[in-house]
Amino acid sequence: MELTGRSIIGFSRGAASKEMLFGLNPATGEQLKPGYHFASTDEVDQAAQLAANAFASYSQTSGQQRARFLRQIAENIEALGDTLISRATTETGLPEGRIKSETGRTCSQLRLFADVVAEGSWVDARIDHADTNRTPLPKPDVRSMLRPLGPVVVFGASNFPLAFSVAGGDTASAFAAGNPVIVKAHHAHPGTSELVGLAVSDAVRAFELHEGVFSLIYGSGSEVGTALVKHPLIKAGGFTGSRAGGRALFDAASSRLEPIPFYAEMSSVNPVVILPEALRTRAEQLATGLQGSVTLGAGQFCTNPGLVFLRAGAEADAFVSRFGELLSGTSEQTMLTPGIRSSYQKGVASRFDQTGVATVMQKSAAADCAASPALFKVDAAGFIANKSLSEEIFGPTTLMVTYENDEELLKIVRSLEGQLTATIHGTDEELSNNRDLINLLETKAGRLLFNGFPTGVEVCHSMVHGGPYPATSDGRSTSVGTRAIFRFTRQVCFQSFPNAALPDELKEENPLGIWRLVDGALSK
Amino acid sequence: MELTGRSIIGFSRGAASKEMLFGLNPATGEQLKPGYHFASTDEVDQAAQLAANAFASYSQTSGQQRARFLRQIAENIEALGDTLISRATTETGLPEGRIKSETGRTCSQLRLFADVVAEGSWVDARIDHADTNRTPLPKPDVRSMLRPLGPVVVFGASNFPLAFSVAGGDTASAFAAGNPVIVKAHHAHPGTSELVGLAVSDAVRAFELHEGVFSLIYGSGSEVGTALVKHPLIKAGGFTGSRAGGRALFDAASSRLEPIPFYAEMSSVNPVVILPEALRTRAEQLATGLQGSVTLGAGQFCTNPGLVFLRAGAEADAFVSRFGELLSGTSEQTMLTPGIRSSYQKGVASRFDQTGVATVMQKSAAADCAASPALFKVDAAGFIANKSLSEEIFGPTTLMVTYENDEELLKIVRSLEGQLTATIHGTDEELSNNRDLINLLETKAGRLLFNGFPTGVEVCHSMVHGGPYPATSDGRSTSVGTRAIFRFTRQVCFQSFPNAALPDELKEENPLGIWRLVDGALSK
Repeated sequence: MELTGRSIIGFSRGAASKEMLFGLNPATGEQLKPGYHFASTDEVDQAAQLAANAFASYSQTSGQQRARFLRQIAENIEALGDTLISRATTETGLPEGRIKSETGRTCSQLRLFADVVAEGSWVDARIDHADTNRTPLPKPDVRSMLRPLGPVVVFGASNFPLAFSVAGGDTASAFAAGNPVIVKAHHAHPGTSELVGLAVSDAVRAFELHEGVFSLIYGSGSEVGTALVKHPLIKAGGFTGSRAGGRALFDAASSRLEPIPFYAEMSSVNPVVILPEALRTRAEQLATGLQGSVTLGAGQFCTNPGLVFLRAGAEADAFVSRFGELLSGTSEQTMLTPGIRSSYQKGVASRFDQTGVATVMQKSAAADCAASPALFKVDAAGFIANKSLSEEIFGPTTLMVTYENDEELLKIVRSLEGQLTATIHGTDEELSNNRDLINLLETKAGRLLFNGFPTGVEVCHSMVHGGPYPATSDGRSTSVGTRAIFRFTRQVCFQSFPNAALPDELKEENPLGIWRLVDGALSK
Repeated sequence: MELTGRSIIGFSRGAASKEMLFGLNPATGEQLKPGYHFASTDEVDQAAQLAANAFASYSQTSGQQRARFLRQIAENIEALGDTLISRATTETGLPEGRIKSETGRTCSQLRLFADVVAEGSWVDARIDHADTNRTPLPKPDVRSMLRPLGPVVVFGASNFPLAFSVAGGDTASAFAAGNPVIVKAHHAHPGTSELVGLAVSDAVRAFELHEGVFSLIYGSGSEVGTALVKHPLIKAGGFTGSRAGGRALFDAASSRLEPIPFYAEMSSVNPVVILPEALRTRAEQLATGLQGSVTLGAGQFCTNPGLVFLRAGAEADAFVSRFGELLSGTSEQTMLTPGIRSSYQKGVASRFDQTGVATVMQKSAAADCAASPALFKVDAAGFIANKSLSEEIFGPTTLMVTYENDEELLKIVRSLEGQLTATIHGTDEELSNNRDLINLLETKAGRLLFNGFPTGVEVCHSMVHGGPYPATSDGRSTSVGTRAIFRFTRQVCFQSFPNAALPDELKEENPLGIWRLVDGALSK
């Protein structure tokens, strides 16, 4: 399959503008062909217009039809085989095993959403029957369900070239709900984006859907990205990336004449609390587990544990020292882009001269785009006094914070911003003795883990990959798991409609056999 | 019961500040005692701090406990009896029958939310069991449910002194979900607000809840209201009122360091489409029904039908003329406040000199704060050319828009902003022949009605009282009906937690007997 370096705008390709971006092999610094041409303002407008036109028909497709479409996308991605693996590993520096498993995850995500919409009960159909005899006023027949929002713009993420990019979780959930999607490709993997984009396009063609159901746009985030978010025909957005980038786009979305929901997943340090009994009884196991979690994928996960809270004492000292040893033994890994690597180096360097912060271990990386782990330590007072210590450093580093007593632990936790995850290690007894800690952590994070590690996000019905700001711009939502579909929907109600004019989901005879809340009771 | 004119801040009362507002009898212009003292910045902060402190315990109450609390509030409101009716009719100008039925609605709303949380399935509990044998990675046990957001600020609405004020729909749904509430009283009915506020306070005391669960604040919207929305401890807001006021508060909420959801229900003209066969066969019935809907409550409903679309011709002319006659026969009604009345007069006057707009009927009101109906007419081209004609005039007036053909009808509808409701009158056959119209209206409104009138919003499970901007600031939500509870919640996930440490809703044995999505299948 030949890469063209042009945007995909419905069934057309973008023009060969002068401005271009190139993929880069982070391991070698080699620039990769072809050059990717920036989309023009006209092309952005064209994609938005096509998406709005496509909404009329695509929003009316059945769940079964959308399920077939999603499954076809998964098949088309799988059919890319080695072409995809080769391009993705080259332009991201991620190992083949990771790209293979991420491809698997991407396809099973698409199929999971297909299952959800094929089954159909997700629409939260509700029926309240009329009561013409009610006094003083008769009661009308009222029925409602979730319907798609309109064209959605999705921003590809640097650290998930497949599972959170062109056909990743945001796109899959937006498509599943019945929305056309325009993806803004991430500059870190333009070739992977084009390959997957063509796989999606082929599925649009195969099912004779409106061409505007999918477009893929290349360009700069601040220009093309902002233009998409501000376009009056766009009705929602999904983003995974930096706090500054996410906030800027959220602000653009909120300050529109017609504000739109913008789901940015931005920044999290994922605190891990190790309670005394856990530390006493399984320090070695914890150190090994934590080392795996901190260094996984060169630490380039939004769920990377960047803070560890330990009760001060000899056991904490021994743990920190042992954990430092394990990190020292970790080999360096290539980061996704020189920009990410340079931010990581700067972040690590900024910790050297902070009051009260001790550098437990730190090695300089040998290769240009490689990261080596770094470990720091501070006490609770030093941590609370310095806001910058609770900010995310994207990469394989963590900060150990020692506290003197339960009171001080609660104080540290209270000082934290919103998080994607919070983890507690302890015995069952410690957990039941720390009700206040759990309740507090619940207000800080979307997912609480017990005796586990936050990296590795299960794609399932109950997953919550979201959390209070700045973990996400909208702490009510999740970007992973089947609940992600709710982000791109709105409630619509039909009053006194004849049965034939109702959507199938709301017809009296329940032709789709879905679960519905009928006069307040769930039935099928 | 003696009114004190002071804010309710937890179990304390506000200080007697110099700045005050007074209730006013709109029918007589008489100023009502007592004066209501504006809350100070410190008092606002105190209420927010109390609410945040209350969240720790109130968010952990069971659904049964919250149900009892909500039912007690309803009982306490009912116990106010004539005191409430007398004060409310005096300061709003609304007739006794309306205040009685609105009190009834307020109490049944509280009880409906009580039923929902007592039953418990609303939390969307989801369980995905572990699979330790899965390869390459074992699957963890993941469980999640909806949890409360945190302290909520609710703005009382002028036009619903009970059902959308101190203990109205926003407060009931926020309490039901487990959130403390701070109400900013509307200046149009301060006494009614204090009476209901004391009824809520008494319920807080009766169940020995934390005093911060409820506060009621007096002051100006732009100062005290904005201070509440911007307070870092406030986590969400609910508002019903003007477009300018709602947008300003939404902007304050979105531009915070930590943005919060702000649900403003603002502006809607509620288009009514009368298709030719309906017009031909039941013009008189339509004219009578429409007259009732346009003039109900002096037109002071957000669902008031402010636009009517008719196919041009002799039948339309006859209809407009007959409808004008009916409106002329309507007696004038007292409006809620002199401010609302003056805006209404200005809005009506602004239509006199618009190009292409004919004044079908208009009478000047005799009494100071009274409104008389006004009726205008314009053709489709004139309507589309003039944006101001699709803006809401709050009061008993409507604009008839004639169109030549289906194409032009779609064009008018396409030009509309977001709406709370859209209504179609026609035969079943006309409805099935106008699929494009329905699909288009669906993108414009939260509730579609067939052969009915939009005023009168049924409080039930399936109601959607929301709609695309500017009908609401968040078109995904509803402020009426049980789905309103979702606005004040977030998803929280527990991974690998021991059964005993899980919330009851997620415990393996399902002690609450609620519906849950277990491994993808609903069960109880």
